[in-house]
Parts: sequence; structure tokens; C-alpha cells
Amino acid sequence: MGGRSSPLQSARERIAFHVRALREVHGMSQERLGELAELHRTYIGSIERKERNLSIDNVERIAKVFGVDITALLARY
Amino acid sequence: MGGRSSPLQSARERIAFHVRALREVHGMSQERLGELAELHRTYIGSIERKERNLSIDNVERIAKVFGVDITALLARY
Repeated sequence: MGGRSSPLQSARERIAFHVRALREVHGMSQERLGELAELHRTYIGSIERKERNLSIDNVERIAKVFGVDITALLARY
Repeated sequence: MGGRSSPLQSARERIAFHVRALREVHGMSQERLGELAELHRTYIGSIERKERNLSIDNVERIAKVFGVDITALLARY
């Protein structure tokens, strides 16, 4: 998909997209991300399926694992 | 304070700062913001005191009230 940004992407959609993309860039499994962020593997899966209304503290934990600012996980894509 | 950005600002600090600043710009009370976002007034207060590990869906509700993107509430200041 091209980079046409849409204002309609929800926060959950954005986080799901970026978490998955960053995992892939880093060749990191959901399990490994869970370990590093101290979150359960199934919790990471539910984030990527947009099922999870996650808290801002957990968004921050995940951003720290990837060494990115929290806004990188919430950017339009 | 000047606009020197710090990477150390937590997500809670950023949200607290921007929610309060946007309320002030709009001359909006915590109570009014709570009504518009369908969140309790005391919940808005706790966000501004950084006590609240709020969910991403609620960050989104607040952003919608102010007509800003969710990233505006999470920007470094």
C-alpha cells in the first residue's frame, strides 16, 4: 500500500501497523517482543489484531524496546 | 518554559501538558472536557496530574474533542 495517510486510522490501527512493521524490521517474534517489553506474547498478538485498548504506559514500553519515540507508534501510515 | 524538547518526558507527562494547554487555549473547564469526551471530570483531573495510565481509546476521545490528531497529545513539548 502507498503512503497515502488517512485521518481515519484509529490509534489501535496505527499501533498495530507499527508494532508489526518494527518487529519485522528487527526480525523479532511476538514472543521476543513480549519478553523485552515484559508483556505476554498473547498480549502482543492482541495488539496487532487491534483487539486491545492498551494503556499509554504499555505503548511506552514497546517504544522503548524498539528505541523509538512513542509518537512513532502512533504516526499515520 | 522554552521549547527545549527532552526525550525523557513520559507519555503521561506529555498528555498531561497538552490536555491542560488545549483546555486553556479553548477556555474549557475539566468538567466541560469531560462532558464532551464522555469521561468523568475527576478522570480529566487525574490525567492532568499524571496519575492515570489512560488507554489509547481515551487519548483518542480527547483528541477528537479538540480536533487534533492523537500524536498532538503525545508530542514532546
